[in-house]
Order: sequence, then structure tokens, then C-alpha cells
Amino acid sequence: MSSGRGPRPEYGFESFMERARLVVDNTIEVLLDNCQAPDGLKKAMRYAVFSGGKRLRPAMVLAAAEQFGSDDDAARFAAAAVEFVHTYSLIHDDLPAMDNDDLRRGKPTVHRAFDEATAILAGDGLLTLAFEVLAGDLPALVGSKKAATAVGFLASAAGPAGMVGGQFTDVRAAASKGRLSRDDTLKIHRSKTGELFAASLKIGALLGEASEDDLKCLKEFGYSFGLAFQLTDDLLDFDRELELGCGAAVSFAVSHSKEETVALATQYSERCRALVEPYGDKALFLRDLSDFVLSRSH
Amino acid sequence: MSSGRGPRPEYGFESFMERARLVVDNTIEVLLDNCQAPDGLKKAMRYAVFSGGKRLRPAMVLAAAEQFGSDDDAARFAAAAVEFVHTYSLIHDDLPAMDNDDLRRGKPTVHRAFDEATAILAGDGLLTLAFEVLAGDLPALVGSKKAATAVGFLASAAGPAGMVGGQFTDVRAAASKGRLSRDDTLKIHRSKTGELFAASLKIGALLGEASEDDLKCLKEFGYSFGLAFQLTDDLLDFDRELELGCGAAVSFAVSHSKEETVALATQYSERCRALVEPYGDKALFLRDLSDFVLSRSH
Repeated sequence: MSSGRGPRPEYGFESFMERARLVVDNTIEVLLDNCQAPDGLKKAMRYAVFSGGKRLRPAMVLAAAEQFGSDDDAARFAAAAVEFVHTYSLIHDDLPAMDNDDLRRGKPTVHRAFDEATAILAGDGLLTLAFEVLAGDLPALVGSKKAATAVGFLASAAGPAGMVGGQFTDVRAAASKGRLSRDDTLKIHRSKTGELFAASLKIGALLGEASEDDLKCLKEFGYSFGLAFQLTDDLLDFDRELELGCGAAVSFAVSHSKEETVALATQYSERCRALVEPYGDKALFLRDLSDFVLSRSH
Repeated sequence: MSSGRGPRPEYGFESFMERARLVVDNTIEVLLDNCQAPDGLKKAMRYAVFSGGKRLRPAMVLAAAEQFGSDDDAARFAAAAVEFVHTYSLIHDDLPAMDNDDLRRGKPTVHRAFDEATAILAGDGLLTLAFEVLAGDLPALVGSKKAATAVGFLASAAGPAGMVGGQFTDVRAAASKGRLSRDDTLKIHRSKTGELFAASLKIGALLGEASEDDLKCLKEFGYSFGLAFQLTDDLLDFDRELELGCGAAVSFAVSHSKEETVALATQYSERCRALVEPYGDKALFLRDLSDFVLSRSH
């Protein structure tokens, strides 16, 4: 993730996140500048992608890439592609026909700031651009085999068996207002959230020299991290909704006790830590990430 | 496109189209069967993709693949991927926020037969599945380099500079009710329609042994064919709308005389014929396709 000139700066979780954000923001700027979209469409895509996200998934791509010795440029292109897919999913999830959200991170959602047609198309555009970037920019840097594998990882995570499927089940469950079983809730969280975390790590790692076992371990980390992440998210939403007095979408914290939710999140966070323990100092960011996810809830 | 066992049957335009339809329908069946999507989502994806399309784009993939000696299985996977992208674009174009169509080919559109959230997600799912298929199934058959290039061709055609951008400009133009210039109308047609025709041919050809010049020629054919196709479509819509007395979306036939539209369509059809003339008997289907597009209008 360095500029490729000087030595890598000393590791710190916050500083790594900040460097990752700068790297991926610059890359996204360049990719959007070069994208030959109509002005109004590009404006909406840019609005969505620069709406104050933490760039958590890109940071995970970059951390895994660094851990397994990937080319820096390949890693930042992949990180941008992952962020495009994440942003598309937020735009479509917010649509009136889905979660019908007016605000995201305190700013009007894309269909509110622009209109619904523009939001649908900005989402479609970002999703497609992600694959254009992986297939267009990676082959010259890391070879076609890794590029094609990265496309496959990202498409599987995003596709009907992953994020799209998870959102479908989530919307259906919210509409039926039925109480979901623990297993069903965790399954939705895994496909909606865990799959893209897992793909971020696997893509970063595969751009370097990761073994099949490494990829398996990182996938497991991504799933567990996704569950811990979503459970702490549920807790935050739960507190917020108690305050506001409004209803909740699919949420573990609603159908289970707060204590049970915290306990389960802690369990998944510990599982993450254990998974990367064997990598020692090579996986400092992932180790810290395992703790970070819990600190979100209080 | 043969089963790989017997000799290829004698060429005929109609029989080629029919064989292409069978091959791609079987492939789509298998791909959807294997797709681990939630049942309701898969049902909507299947409904959309089996709604009576002519499978024109898959036929073009298969024809180009045959012409340049591609592996049969690779060609049919690519043909299915192209049809997934085409179907996704129809589902999203039909949405209330876009063209707001209740019927397509005489059947309820996906958001009418199911609901809007399902339609958005079925579209997202098919778009993503297309890349999953190309990246997942092609490498073992034709190598990762061709697979990655195919992903790039399809993503560029579908993306913000292609179909998504064209639809954005189209929706905007329809909303403003302004009369578009000839150049603007043709530009929309090229990105909405021509890009995917061009990508279909280029992908089929690249799976075999096509040169850069071949790819350039096929791209040109795809663009010209797309314009001829869309212009004859405009004529059909124009006649239909005169009958029904309702308004038209972006259409060349509305802002220009019918004669001028026919003349321009003919010109593009002749351009197509000229482009594949040098290939002689190897490009019989593309030659016939150049004539077929005109016969649609009367």
C-alpha cells in the first residue's frame, strides 16, 4: 500500500485505516475521472461513493494484500472495485421499494439527492465498473489467472447466492414481519455482510502468494467478522430505535436479548482473533480489527 | 455449437437461430439450477430469462465463436452470460422509476408479476451471475487470459459508458420531452443497444482465434447492426403508437421522417453486409443477419 518509494511506515491501526482511505480515495478519483459515463450519472456515482464511508472493506483488501506480498497497484484497484460493489449495494438497499431510507450517514440517500432512476442506474454502473476494473487493470499487474479469480470471488460474493440473495431474504422477512430464527438471521447476515468481507480478504491475499489454506482461513475470518460486525450493528440500531420508537428490520437484537447478542458478537470476534493468531506480526491489522468490531457497540 | 459429436448440420438462418436457442436455453437451465439463490429470487430470475426472447445476442456469440473456432462449451457459457446481461437490462428498464412498463412480450413485467424489490434484485442477480459464469467457467476451457478479456468486454459494454449510460441519457431525454438531435439519438442507440451486440460478437470471436482486426471489424458490425436494429424498432414502435395514439420515448422515427429512418436503417444494414463480405462462407449467419434486421420493419 506504500507509494512504492520509501519504507512502509510503522504499523498502527488508526494510521493504517487512514492510509488505506487515502489510497483508495485517490484510486477511486482516477477511476471515476477516466470513466466515460454521462455527466449526471457520474455525479450520482461520485456522490454515493464519496459519502463518508470508513473504507473498511478496501482496508481489508489492502491489509491482506500486504500480508501476502501483492503488487501495490493491483491491491488498490481491487480495493476500489470492492468499494464500488459495497456502494452499489447501499444505493439499491436504500431504494423506496427496499428499505426506503431517506438518509445515510446523515446525508440524503442517492434517490433522494437525485431521483430513483438515477439511483438504480448509479448502482448498476458501480457494480459493473467493479468488474471492468478487475478485468481491465489487474491482468497486466498480476496476470490474468489472478484477475479472473478475483472477478469470480467478487461476483460470487455479490451475486444471487451472496449479497443479492441476502438482501432478497432480508426484504422478504421484513415485509412478512415474522420473527426469524437465530439461524435464519445469521444466514442473512452472512450473505449480506460476511460474503463481501470474506471476498475482500481473499482477493487481497490472492493478489499476493496465498495458499488455498490461507484463503480458507481468511474466508472464515470474513464470515465471522461479518457476523460480529452485523451483531454490533444490530445493537446500535436497537438502541437507536428504542430511542426513536420506530420499528426494526431483520435484527438479531430484536428477537434475542441484548446480552445474548453481545455474547455472540464477542464469540465471533474471538474466533477472528484466533484465526489470525498463527500469522503473528504479519496480521496485526486483522488482529486489531477483531477487537475493533466489538468497540463499535459501546 | 454442435454437441461436439457429429458433423455440424448444414447452415440455414432459421435453423441456426433455432439451434442457438436450444443450446443457450439448456445452458441457462443448468446455470440457474446450480445457482444457490433463495427460491423466490431464482423464480423471478427464471421468469425473466425465459420470457420468450429470440436469443439474438447468444446466437451472435455462438456464430462468432463458430466462425473463429472456439470451444463449444465456452461459447455456450458466454452466450448465456450475455443473455443474463440483456435480461437484467430489460428488467431494470421496465421499472416504474424508468420506463414504467406493465407488459413485455405480452407478459407482465417482472415488477408486475412479482414486486419492485424482487425485480431490482433479480436484475442485480442476473448481472452479477453473468460475470460469475465468465470468470468461473471459462478459464478451464479457454484459459484465464480469454476469460478475463471476455469479462472486460462484457463489463465495458454493460457499464456506465455503455448500456447503463445509454439508459441514463434515454430516461433523462424522455423526462425532458425535448427533441433530440440525430447524433444524440444515434449515440443513445449505440450505447443502449449497439454495445452489447458488439460485445456478443467480440466475445464469441475472442474465444476462438480472432485477430485484433477481426475484433475491430466485429465491433463495427455490432454498432451498425445495433443502429439498424434500433431504427427498425423505432419504426415498429412509431406505427404502433400512431395506432394507439400514445407518446413515444426517444425514437429516431419521431423526430425524423419515416423515409429518412428507413433509409438510414438500410444504410447501416448494408454497412454490416459489407463488413463481413471478406469472410465469405465463414460468416453466412452474420451476412443473413444484416438482411434480417431490415425485414423486421415490414
